[in-house]
Amino acid sequence: MTTFNLNADMAESYGPWVMGNDNALLPVINSANIACGFHAGDHNIMTNTMRKAAEHHVSIGAHPGFYDLHGFGRRQMNLSLDEIEHLIAYQLGAAIGAAALAGVKVTHVKPHGALNNMAATNADMAMAIARAVKAVDKSQIFLAPVLSELVTAGEACGLLVAQEIFADRAYMPDGQLAPRSRPDAMIHDPDIALSHSLTMLTEHKITAIDGTTLPITPHSLCVHGDGASAVAMAKHLQTGLTHAGLTAKTLPDMML
Amino acid sequence: MTTFNLNADMAESYGPWVMGNDNALLPVINSANIACGFHAGDHNIMTNTMRKAAEHHVSIGAHPGFYDLHGFGRRQMNLSLDEIEHLIAYQLGAAIGAAALAGVKVTHVKPHGALNNMAATNADMAMAIARAVKAVDKSQIFLAPVLSELVTAGEACGLLVAQEIFADRAYMPDGQLAPRSRPDAMIHDPDIALSHSLTMLTEHKITAIDGTTLPITPHSLCVHGDGASAVAMAKHLQTGLTHAGLTAKTLPDMML
Amino acid sequence: MTTFNLNADMAESYGPWVMGNDNALLPVINSANIACGFHAGDHNIMTNTMRKAAEHHVSIGAHPGFYDLHGFGRRQMNLSLDEIEHLIAYQLGAAIGAAALAGVKVTHVKPHGALNNMAATNADMAMAIARAVKAVDKSQIFLAPVLSELVTAGEACGLLVAQEIFADRAYMPDGQLAPRSRPDAMIHDPDIALSHSLTMLTEHKITAIDGTTLPITPHSLCVHGDGASAVAMAKHLQTGLTHAGLTAKTLPDMML
Amino acid sequence: MTTFNLNADMAESYGPWVMGNDNALLPVINSANIACGFHAGDHNIMTNTMRKAAEHHVSIGAHPGFYDLHGFGRRQMNLSLDEIEHLIAYQLGAAIGAAALAGVKVTHVKPHGALNNMAATNADMAMAIARAVKAVDKSQIFLAPVLSELVTAGEACGLLVAQEIFADRAYMPDGQLAPRSRPDAMIHDPDIALSHSLTMLTEHKITAIDGTTLPITPHSLCVHGDGASAVAMAKHLQTGLTHAGLTAKTLPDMML
Repeated sequence: MTTFNLNADMAESYGPWVMGNDNALLPVINSANIACGFHAGDHNIMTNTMRKAAEHHVSIGAHPGFYDLHGFGRRQMNLSLDEIEHLIAYQLGAAIGAAALAGVKVTHVKPHGALNNMAATNADMAMAIARAVKAVDKSQIFLAPVLSELVTAGEACGLLVAQEIFADRAYMPDGQLAPRSRPDAMIHDPDIALSHSLTMLTEHKITAIDGTTLPITPHSLCVHGDGASAVAMAKHLQTGLTHAGLTAKTLPDMML
Repeated sequence: MTTFNLNADMAESYGPWVMGNDNALLPVINSANIACGFHAGDHNIMTNTMRKAAEHHVSIGAHPGFYDLHGFGRRQMNLSLDEIEHLIAYQLGAAIGAAALAGVKVTHVKPHGALNNMAATNADMAMAIARAVKAVDKSQIFLAPVLSELVTAGEACGLLVAQEIFADRAYMPDGQLAPRSRPDAMIHDPDIALSHSLTMLTEHKITAIDGTTLPITPHSLCVHGDGASAVAMAKHLQTGLTHAGLTAKTLPDMML
Repeated sequence: MTTFNLNADMAESYGPWVMGNDNALLPVINSANIACGFHAGDHNIMTNTMRKAAEHHVSIGAHPGFYDLHGFGRRQMNLSLDEIEHLIAYQLGAAIGAAALAGVKVTHVKPHGALNNMAATNADMAMAIARAVKAVDKSQIFLAPVLSELVTAGEACGLLVAQEIFADRAYMPDGQLAPRSRPDAMIHDPDIALSHSLTMLTEHKITAIDGTTLPITPHSLCVHGDGASAVAMAKHLQTGLTHAGLTAKTLPDMML
Repeated sequence: MTTFNLNADMAESYGPWVMGNDNALLPVINSANIACGFHAGDHNIMTNTMRKAAEHHVSIGAHPGFYDLHGFGRRQMNLSLDEIEHLIAYQLGAAIGAAALAGVKVTHVKPHGALNNMAATNADMAMAIARAVKAVDKSQIFLAPVLSELVTAGEACGLLVAQEIFADRAYMPDGQLAPRSRPDAMIHDPDIALSHSLTMLTEHKITAIDGTTLPITPHSLCVHGDGASAVAMAKHLQTGLTHAGLTAKTLPDMML
């Protein structure tokens, strides 16, 4: 029986500011990536969101990013590898602390934004991230984009690696996401996104933008909560995959 | 055989800014309170300072404070008890993460600045802090000022409580530190500070500013590193206490 | 002919986070208080909001607050009077700089949140704020709550003072706003708020919560944009006051 | 009679953290570049440093940088041109506000760190900076590295441009500073730095690292205050240039 996992970024509010639609998305997803205070998600929001996630049987991950509130962690920053290790260890530890208070466990780690994108193609950065995760808690599941250096680094460090795909993004022949500047980068039609996802999950392949076929071993589908159509898309995927006979699981239920 | 412990605040630099004299103080003290990024001490400085502390066989504590860089955590802030729990859990977790990367353990927690001062006389705040410490790691030693609500709260939560005294501060009849506005608040003479400390450590009493005698159960002496005279004072206490036959220990060596 | 002014806090978004409903409120109000980056409103949001305000012929004010993003400037902080002067001068200058880039002028200053509330009853703080405003630009209109120390301080410094009233808040016999903890603190009925406002604007008096009559010299009515009912309330006041024969003016059109 | 100007970065402390040696450097320099709170220099430090600068007859400049405390504004950040305009306008305005409170004037602007370095070779960024300066106060002197796009941009915007050279840095044949990774990038010998400076100031040329001669029109020499040798170097340059018959001037005295 084939399984799937829907993951989404959560706890992206900050202080008095609200972002996202966590309440609408929590019933749909299986695993939540919790922002850790550096690009979003302060200590109050983290603990409160983790409590809500647990009520929905959603498993919890740390979602560390660059220290960049203004840019939401989406701007590239040049840090030394030591600095990247420190950045990850601090935020993962903070998430583990917040989770302990909420009475739940952090079971996976997924880097955020520019940190994730840079490390996807930079083996040294990817290794620095994986080393820090391993040092803090080697039982963490490492959620990494398929065909990325993060997968390689996670496996090289002996971490359990869950591989992530995107339902609504086209892929380049090298396995990277098509840049948003391309008109065909985004898949807006929910039915196309669903069939794209089903192909990836059940046939273990991506058909890239030029027709190239890329073999993959996917575990988790990233969905979004920004806007009504994003939540509708996430529900469509959840329902469609379930109707196709796949079973939704949290990351620890799937991987451990 | 009587033991003593010298503790000091450390890792109070931030980004490109240097504060304190950690290198001079590490050979003198036994336990270091590591700032956790909210009032000082970013993720880079935390990990690096923990590595250095371990080289000097200095045990490591988390030193969480209010989120207040401009005021160095010394300004009173009114937070809800929930917010205080979140604040402590995040920072203690972050310290545990940084320590794991540095290959060391966090063995104690001491609140910083205004947070410590407010909780010393506010039982609800003290309980919120102790609850959060216990939730994150109930094996932590809770370093709390003698005769404070923090001692009561730590014990009520079942934490191992190490009680802290100040070598260079006079005490009020209620056991609180004499406010710095009083001319007799500070003890500047190293020999008087030493005999003050010896009395507290070996006779288990404080003689308050009005002559009142307060029974105490002290474990650790707080020293400072700001300025050459502070380091000299710390060395004088270390040498003097040792010559008086007391044995220096880290907090875990003393308490566990 | 009697005039009135509606003012509202604006530019309260921050980085990637959106707060408030500036677009809905700009056609209703006459003067906008622009957050200056310390409690909300970064440099990008300030300039962009000022441009939009000018398109709606809304006059622009600086809205400086405590340096407190997590608490949105609503938490009390103890600063020295020098620090308060520096705080105001920096933020007012920043607003003037942002306005110059937007091709508009800052014509008034209104302190935000806890800074405003504390200074309303603290003559020293009120004078520090007024002194800083005067030092930076003595032509600024000082928007201050009726019957507050800020009015006294602004006038003592020779600033032009516009006095502010609240349509939806009850007043205590000493002229302060009834605390929100009281059940009768807020006026939710738009018609009562309108008649309350008309009495204050045309009869120059407040009837306090215990029936006491307080003579006032009001200029501007503070309205809010958080939520659909707040915008509806603001529109109801605008329409009602206009139908009653009063004329809406920007603060500089009214005061200069 | 030939004139010269020594400028240095100042007010680089932050909150409780001290950086630099402003008191030692103020008697040596003629113009101070005041950090504006985004990479260093909070509102308190700015006003206080400006007051001290005025006592030493040192003219005052705004020194805006990227919003990056951890990296001290030395890390490259990709901002849109609009964002760069907002960044400059906010910080220049804030400096003008702080200066008004201190009873002094801001008479020049010099971008800081990575912002300055990136704009030196990026014409679009340089124009965005110059446009923002002009919008806020077109009487500002624009302090820009010789042979950089910032000079071109400042002149294109109609700003008065003061051109800056470095006494202790070697130059590449294209006029850029030799990167610090090269062993010959820094000039450590005070006498060589002095003769290097004299050649640039009196012969209006740079001899680049490969012997190429670059014609320049220099006005100001940048000096540093970090460490005893830096202050000694600055004094050596001040004395040496004066003995060679050059006259020290503030930027406004030289340029206006």
